[in-house]
Amino acid sequence: MRFVVAPSGFKESLDAEAVAAAITAGIRRVVPGAIVDPVPLVDGGEGSARTLAAAGGGELIPLTVTGPVGRPVRAHFAVIGKTAVVEMAAAAGLRLVPTDLRQPGATTTYGVGELIKAALDTGCERILVGCGDSGTCDGGAGALQALGARLLDGDGVELGRGGDALAEVKDIDVTGLDPRLADVRITLACNPHNVLCGDQGVARVFGPQKGATPRDVERLAAALDRWAVVLQEKFGRELATAPGSGASGGLGAGLAGVLGAELLPRFDVLLEHLDLDRRLAAADLVITAEGAIDFQTPRGKVPAEVARRAKRFGKPVIALAGTIGKGARRNYDIGIDAYAGILAAPVPLAEAMDRAAELLTDATERTLRLVLLGAALATDRVTLGTAGVGGPAEQAGVRIS
Amino acid sequence: MRFVVAPSGFKESLDAEAVAAAITAGIRRVVPGAIVDPVPLVDGGEGSARTLAAAGGGELIPLTVTGPVGRPVRAHFAVIGKTAVVEMAAAAGLRLVPTDLRQPGATTTYGVGELIKAALDTGCERILVGCGDSGTCDGGAGALQALGARLLDGDGVELGRGGDALAEVKDIDVTGLDPRLADVRITLACNPHNVLCGDQGVARVFGPQKGATPRDVERLAAALDRWAVVLQEKFGRELATAPGSGASGGLGAGLAGVLGAELLPRFDVLLEHLDLDRRLAAADLVITAEGAIDFQTPRGKVPAEVARRAKRFGKPVIALAGTIGKGARRNYDIGIDAYAGILAAPVPLAEAMDRAAELLTDATERTLRLVLLGAALATDRVTLGTAGVGGPAEQAGVRIS
Repeated sequence: MRFVVAPSGFKESLDAEAVAAAITAGIRRVVPGAIVDPVPLVDGGEGSARTLAAAGGGELIPLTVTGPVGRPVRAHFAVIGKTAVVEMAAAAGLRLVPTDLRQPGATTTYGVGELIKAALDTGCERILVGCGDSGTCDGGAGALQALGARLLDGDGVELGRGGDALAEVKDIDVTGLDPRLADVRITLACNPHNVLCGDQGVARVFGPQKGATPRDVERLAAALDRWAVVLQEKFGRELATAPGSGASGGLGAGLAGVLGAELLPRFDVLLEHLDLDRRLAAADLVITAEGAIDFQTPRGKVPAEVARRAKRFGKPVIALAGTIGKGARRNYDIGIDAYAGILAAPVPLAEAMDRAAELLTDATERTLRLVLLGAALATDRVTLGTAGVGGPAEQAGVRIS
Repeated sequence: MRFVVAPSGFKESLDAEAVAAAITAGIRRVVPGAIVDPVPLVDGGEGSARTLAAAGGGELIPLTVTGPVGRPVRAHFAVIGKTAVVEMAAAAGLRLVPTDLRQPGATTTYGVGELIKAALDTGCERILVGCGDSGTCDGGAGALQALGARLLDGDGVELGRGGDALAEVKDIDVTGLDPRLADVRITLACNPHNVLCGDQGVARVFGPQKGATPRDVERLAAALDRWAVVLQEKFGRELATAPGSGASGGLGAGLAGVLGAELLPRFDVLLEHLDLDRRLAAADLVITAEGAIDFQTPRGKVPAEVARRAKRFGKPVIALAGTIGKGARRNYDIGIDAYAGILAAPVPLAEAMDRAAELLTDATERTLRLVLLGAALATDRVTLGTAGVGGPAEQAGVRIS
């Protein structure tokens, strides 16, 4: 019996690899001979580089770069074969912005540019930029500055860093851009719903949660409008409302406009990178997981994406969840055939999070015993009871490799 | 698809009928056409008469009797066809003994005798006495006194009520016993491990939890030893250590000795009364439930008994539990093929108990979706995903009535 285990991480509790490992341990208890293909999934945000490196047999390269508020931060990127994975949150994540310095008009993606520069030093042919969890809103200006671009005002004076400075931008001097950028394919893994300008633009949608006051938001929105105009004038590309142009505070727009980076839906990029579809096609049963399963899950969460793809191949999908929330039953209609929670007894959330791995392994065992019972029922071999762990599978009439 | 739903109640939360109803509602969501045979189970203690009446289409007859401390209490018994079910706890339960009056040497089963008398008035042919949750330790003396027996000391003086009085018992005058007792079969549903005398006798095992001090315990134990001697001298039946003689503070010994009542293992009596075995034999799938499933479950709890009997017919058994505790996995070895908890999110126990019915229905749905997924897997029809509720069953290759 072949399992694909394709979970997301459990926020603030277990990363995706740990979730996959805990589920795999539960599978082994019930189907010792099972073939398990673990595919820990990420969304491009925090932890993505490390998880992709681990999954793809790549390495994580640490380095110190300029943080979002100008102070040095310890960051990293991953090298997997000829591909470098740059997780923007590692250099400019909201986590790196001290709460008393949360002014999205002032923070910079300069460090992201430094990571891309270091990635070029490895001789990679492709750079995958994971977006999400950003603490910046500078339209990617800082990253471009770090890569050698000069942003100029009407008098040809170079601008400083941060999104607010873009209110004065008139021209972009790319003569100093790192020449190696011409030879690499740069792909951003974006949420296509994030756009640079307008009512749904990054300043208005994400500015407040990054610390902007209403006045900050409007000033920043105007600066990014200006940025979009210059990018179009200079590079002929309309990025004000292009899908993904607003990814990571507009990093999408800057890298797409100046460097010609492609902006792709994050799951298409990341799951393709993980070759998920081919792996799903080979599965007998797909198990996904998320910290919580509820009415929001169908709206682009990992289990929903896994289910959508698994159903293309007619594969059964089970979702395991730390907690089951309101509207969880909607997931029955989007390709998740069944789901189960991991909680055994009433405990505080903190304790459940501490013991998440153990709870997840036990829940996986309980879940698979039910699946095998059903298999036995369908094949009329219904005496599983005293078979003990592992026993049921042999009697369940399902293929076990 | 035919389900037998044979749960215990969830203590202080849902009675057995409510548990069965909640599970049935969950089954209907997934297998709308299922035949569901609900068999709410009881152990003879509190709530047993009401549940058996409801299950057997009988009626509950309320009446006021003498309580364990002499005060009147509102009690009841059930009449189902020609059988009366007397729940001793309804007239002499620990719940009816005010905490400041918990002296097991003083409390009486007089009210139990009054219930039996009232049962005789209905013209029943059999009286089933449910034991458990008692607040008395009088060897059944009170019940016999209420039925017309006179307990006499060495001077032929009639004794008062309560276990301590038995220290003086020398003879039993049965000339005044209700003559109708000769024509009814009286069966006690007992825990066979409860015996009247010795180190494992009721005074020493249950006396302390009924409020006895160590000195009370020894005085009471001596009185019950005396009671056993008189019962043997007078009726030639050894009851000091007979299985069930200690049921409900020795009620077993008194009714067996003086009235020739039979003392039978509670589940044999109660489950036979409910015709459980025949119903299990007709099931495709058996679902049982208990408030908690843990290492104690295999030690004579309802789910273990249901599983033991279901396995005689090779039926698959699922146990649903309010909480899953330590050592729960041992239940895989006693005929419970799979189990599931009802909790969805971290909540305080009190809230989980308030919402137990709703949680149980949702958990039943989740559980059966997994079973049907397994059935579909075994029959290689694995596209359940977008089928919606009810859909999976049709595709699962299992018989659905």
